Amino acid sequence: MRRRAVGDPMLTARPDLLTARLEQAIGAQHVTTDPAQMGGRLAEDRGLYRGEALALIRPGSTAEVAECVRICRAAGAAITPQGGNSGLVGGGVPQGGVILATDRLNRIRSVDALNSTMTVEAGCILQVVQEAAAQADRLFPMSLASEGSCQIGGNLATNAGGTAVLRYGNMREMVLGLEVVLPDGQVLSDLNGLRKNNTGYDLKHLFVGSEGTLGIITAAVLKLFPRPVTRATAMVGVKGPEQALTLYDRLRGQCADALSTFEYVDRLALQMALDHGPGCTDPMTEPHPAYALIELTSADAQSDPDQRLEGLLAAAFEADEIRDAVIGASEAQRDGLWRLRESLSEAQKPEGASIKHDVSVPVSRVADFLTRATAACHAHMPDLRVCPFGHFGDGNLHFNLSRPKAMKDADFLAEYPAFNRIVHDIVADMGGSISAEHGIGLVKRAELRRYKDPVALAVMERIKSALDPDGLMNPGKVL
Amino acid sequence: MRRRAVGDPMLTARPDLLTARLEQAIGAQHVTTDPAQMGGRLAEDRGLYRGEALALIRPGSTAEVAECVRICRAAGAAITPQGGNSGLVGGGVPQGGVILATDRLNRIRSVDALNSTMTVEAGCILQVVQEAAAQADRLFPMSLASEGSCQIGGNLATNAGGTAVLRYGNMREMVLGLEVVLPDGQVLSDLNGLRKNNTGYDLKHLFVGSEGTLGIITAAVLKLFPRPVTRATAMVGVKGPEQALTLYDRLRGQCADALSTFEYVDRLALQMALDHGPGCTDPMTEPHPAYALIELTSADAQSDPDQRLEGLLAAAFEADEIRDAVIGASEAQRDGLWRLRESLSEAQKPEGASIKHDVSVPVSRVADFLTRATAACHAHMPDLRVCPFGHFGDGNLHFNLSRPKAMKDADFLAEYPAFNRIVHDIVADMGGSISAEHGIGLVKRAELRRYKDPVALAVMERIKSALDPDGLMNPGKVL
Repeated sequence: MRRRAVGDPMLTARPDLLTARLEQAIGAQHVTTDPAQMGGRLAEDRGLYRGEALALIRPGSTAEVAECVRICRAAGAAITPQGGNSGLVGGGVPQGGVILATDRLNRIRSVDALNSTMTVEAGCILQVVQEAAAQADRLFPMSLASEGSCQIGGNLATNAGGTAVLRYGNMREMVLGLEVVLPDGQVLSDLNGLRKNNTGYDLKHLFVGSEGTLGIITAAVLKLFPRPVTRATAMVGVKGPEQALTLYDRLRGQCADALSTFEYVDRLALQMALDHGPGCTDPMTEPHPAYALIELTSADAQSDPDQRLEGLLAAAFEADEIRDAVIGASEAQRDGLWRLRESLSEAQKPEGASIKHDVSVPVSRVADFLTRATAACHAHMPDLRVCPFGHFGDGNLHFNLSRPKAMKDADFLAEYPAFNRIVHDIVADMGGSISAEHGIGLVKRAELRRYKDPVALAVMERIKSALDPDGLMNPGKVL
Repeated sequence: MRRRAVGDPMLTARPDLLTARLEQAIGAQHVTTDPAQMGGRLAEDRGLYRGEALALIRPGSTAEVAECVRICRAAGAAITPQGGNSGLVGGGVPQGGVILATDRLNRIRSVDALNSTMTVEAGCILQVVQEAAAQADRLFPMSLASEGSCQIGGNLATNAGGTAVLRYGNMREMVLGLEVVLPDGQVLSDLNGLRKNNTGYDLKHLFVGSEGTLGIITAAVLKLFPRPVTRATAMVGVKGPEQALTLYDRLRGQCADALSTFEYVDRLALQMALDHGPGCTDPMTEPHPAYALIELTSADAQSDPDQRLEGLLAAAFEADEIRDAVIGASEAQRDGLWRLRESLSEAQKPEGASIKHDVSVPVSRVADFLTRATAACHAHMPDLRVCPFGHFGDGNLHFNLSRPKAMKDADFLAEYPAFNRIVHDIVADMGGSISAEHGIGLVKRAELRRYKDPVALAVMERIKSALDPDGLMNPGKVL
């Protein structure tokens, strides 16, 4: 790669001149150079990685973003775009240059209920978008833990996943058109709301998931969906991952897209939620080795998904495919079952250090993966507490490892690379992915180099060079 | 663009040497240089555009494709990839160099029913893929008129649409992984079967819809779906496009993805099918200005979609949103309704020359578009017969114009550019696309330049140059 090294702020011969120009472009009140004021913007959410920046800039329009990019480019200053800064792989941690925050680009430009689309700016908070869709009697299905703070631009740049992928796909599948400020400051305007459009290369898919390395997404046309009006929710106890897979196959085959959730929870993970999660209680009378959280939804007000789910689970019980099941009989009970799922991540914290993997394999290999990876990790550390959970129906597991009860956090975390190698080698052997939904960012760059097809890496490099020859966009991330 | 002009076969200083090398690589029986034997491969299906080629080559494996690409590249010879050659925009018409036919790459490499995926080679006929999916109790939903001859590689390269887009999306949405021979002869191996994979730029989306200008797709992992086991089909008579749109909104809102078809047929188009289509009869007692063909499907064997559709249409009738409706009471009746839809294109031929547009607009604008474009075309030629039909629920119409009964074909066809301008200007004004599902190929290159955002065109050119700096892949197409 012939890209300039841009991590060094000294490349900007006169940083004072750069910030003066930026202040002129967007107003002094939207340019911050004091590291104390930049605060959390210099680090990722958990504080594991910290960077540095000349300035934090907050442009208020697409035109201002474009002007800032041109100014930075002229000065050779790198740009790290930031949405809600809630990513888990350090993709928003600056390496010099400026942080460009999109939070002032927060207008919902239009809602077209009849076309089931919505045109929003990058800085709109996900939850605000969900609510605006609901007001138009539509569903915007993207849903994830940080929805109260993450922004649509970040969701797009990282191709967010979450709990609705089984039914609605990843963020990539929820967008029809994009507006992007390119690394040369030009604006790519493709805010189309079309279901079909075969007029050349589909450029939006380049920017979605590129983690800000090819340009800055400033607005998007999102797809909306009919709102489900009925739902049925069940927690099912199973012998283990193989039974969960059999149940998944049965439900997916008979329900198709009515099956909107199929999440997996290991008993150890559930126990931590029961021990530490506020309001978490075991819905069953005896423990089971693993659980599936299942939901059916329908836009048909006449449908009775509870009855349907009951029939399906009764058949599964008859076939000896499940051990027990509880169907939420009220909205409160359904919320209680979901609370268990939503408490899993947080509930691992009081148990001490954990080592996490966000991996995917073909759905047909999920049970194999759980069995094999659990055994391999135990072989490396017998007292380890393996507590996986995740989006089973997508083949995506958060394969989390909590330290042995008696071990010190630091000693355990020293094994991070060793466990990465064990788990990622198994994932690769099964044709899986070392980053299912969190992306690459800073954290997984070396792992990407290790596991990705070198030809694919070379094509990625060629595209990066073609669009950002100076390497100014979010340097040090992905590639 | 600094790409070499490669349309001229003389660039290959020694064509005999080139073909000798190709014969050595894949066997003399798979290299044809006689134009008579190349036959239909030199032209598109309807014979409107004809090209020339040094040779037709038929490699039998990915390795052979790669070797052929390296040989052609060394000789500076262009490559035009061809699948079933059933495209409608001349994308497979060679402009010198060699035609690389994928028909020998016809293995179904594997079917993973539990993962709902299938790995197939580019030369597999679409219908063969559909049948193999059915054998595994799964659905591969892509369906279009040429399914008995078109190939998966061509479906991918053109991002095929067809009649299942409303429910399942375009070809782009049905693929998880690709294997591609790049213009430099390297093989990009990304045959992953993963629902979630955020490890860098999603390169498959670059190749899908690129019409062979960035590389040759040799294999793909396709997504399969649960097979619908019940269906209900209706033909509905409406006052016109506005009523059709109201009905669409009602059905989509209440049925969500159970609504798998919503096709629009103008009365004039239906009349041509009734006059010329074998076995076509009017299902209703009196004519209506326009029709919608509607289908509900379900994977739930217990469901009764006929009853549901009847209830929905009764409510629409009560609300004065439709004029009449016929629900197919048997498989034969359902097939009869579909036959009407499938006969539309062919039935226009006996009526003399037609001028066709494959356009899309936001679904909310479909009725406006039909009204406005019909009026504008009539203003240009009062006796014109406007006979549109198409994928209303996708916002995609085949806005076809049949010549006035008394006009000569040639006189009418001389108006092609004028009608293109009238229709495409309205499409552009509504934020639509001048090619919804057929692509650009040779035929729509000039129109693309006219209507596409220049910044988007420039990015496309940069990507083309980055991947195919010598411009050897399908020259003269798209860009």
